[in-house]
Amino acid sequence: MSEAWLDAIKWDTHGLIPAIAQDEKTGQVLMLAWMNREALSLTVKEQRAIYWSRSRNKLWRKGEESGHVQTLKDIRLDCDNDVILMQVEQIGGIACHTGRQHCFFQALENQQWRPVDAIIKDPHEIYQK
Amino acid sequence: MSEAWLDAIKWDTHGLIPAIAQDEKTGQVLMLAWMNREALSLTVKEQRAIYWSRSRNKLWRKGEESGHVQTLKDIRLDCDNDVILMQVEQIGGIACHTGRQHCFFQALENQQWRPVDAIIKDPHEIYQK
Repeated sequence: MSEAWLDAIKWDTHGLIPAIAQDEKTGQVLMLAWMNREALSLTVKEQRAIYWSRSRNKLWRKGEESGHVQTLKDIRLDCDNDVILMQVEQIGGIACHTGRQHCFFQALENQQWRPVDAIIKDPHEIYQK
Repeated sequence: MSEAWLDAIKWDTHGLIPAIAQDEKTGQVLMLAWMNREALSLTVKEQRAIYWSRSRNKLWRKGEESGHVQTLKDIRLDCDNDVILMQVEQIGGIACHTGRQHCFFQALENQQWRPVDAIIKDPHEIYQK
């Protein structure tokens, strides 16, 4: 299997590329996370979003704990070969670990960031241990 | 003027944050670029996208040469305080320096990135010198 498409990526100094996940149906930008070479390769192979968790320093199969898998519908690379954009089906309708549809729920109001989108599901219910 | 909203940002080790520009009307993700503290502050103050150019190492008032200004309609911060999402009006309908509507015009086909979106305007016409 040729890996020229992976060689074409301009990885940053940490070997990562930012990847945006957009809801293919609504167009809502769900989140941005990071991928290393293995994560991007696996994302395409398994047709689901697989990121590199910078905080946990390991592969992060989105939805592995929450069930909120992102099924890959389309994948694009930008003009500078340093940003990925994915169209995904967001299983469960929740992308954010706070239980919201998307991660961009803080709006700037009166020079303060304020949460303006509803929590759909309590994170304690999402991440049962 | 309080700068608490700027202090809330988790800047990366280079003092930058990735900023996604989305077309407020079509929902198309136009591009991702980077902002430092001054760029983000000016973006909100002037209500237009102002980035930090990592290649030119200076402020980049989007559209300063091309006329393809991005007027700010909404600005959001994500759950981790380390990604910005803007809704913008894309003046001229062209966000990419290649003359395309958006920067994500390379699709993965048969393990190769291929340009699949039309060039609307010749870059030589956009950047007349």
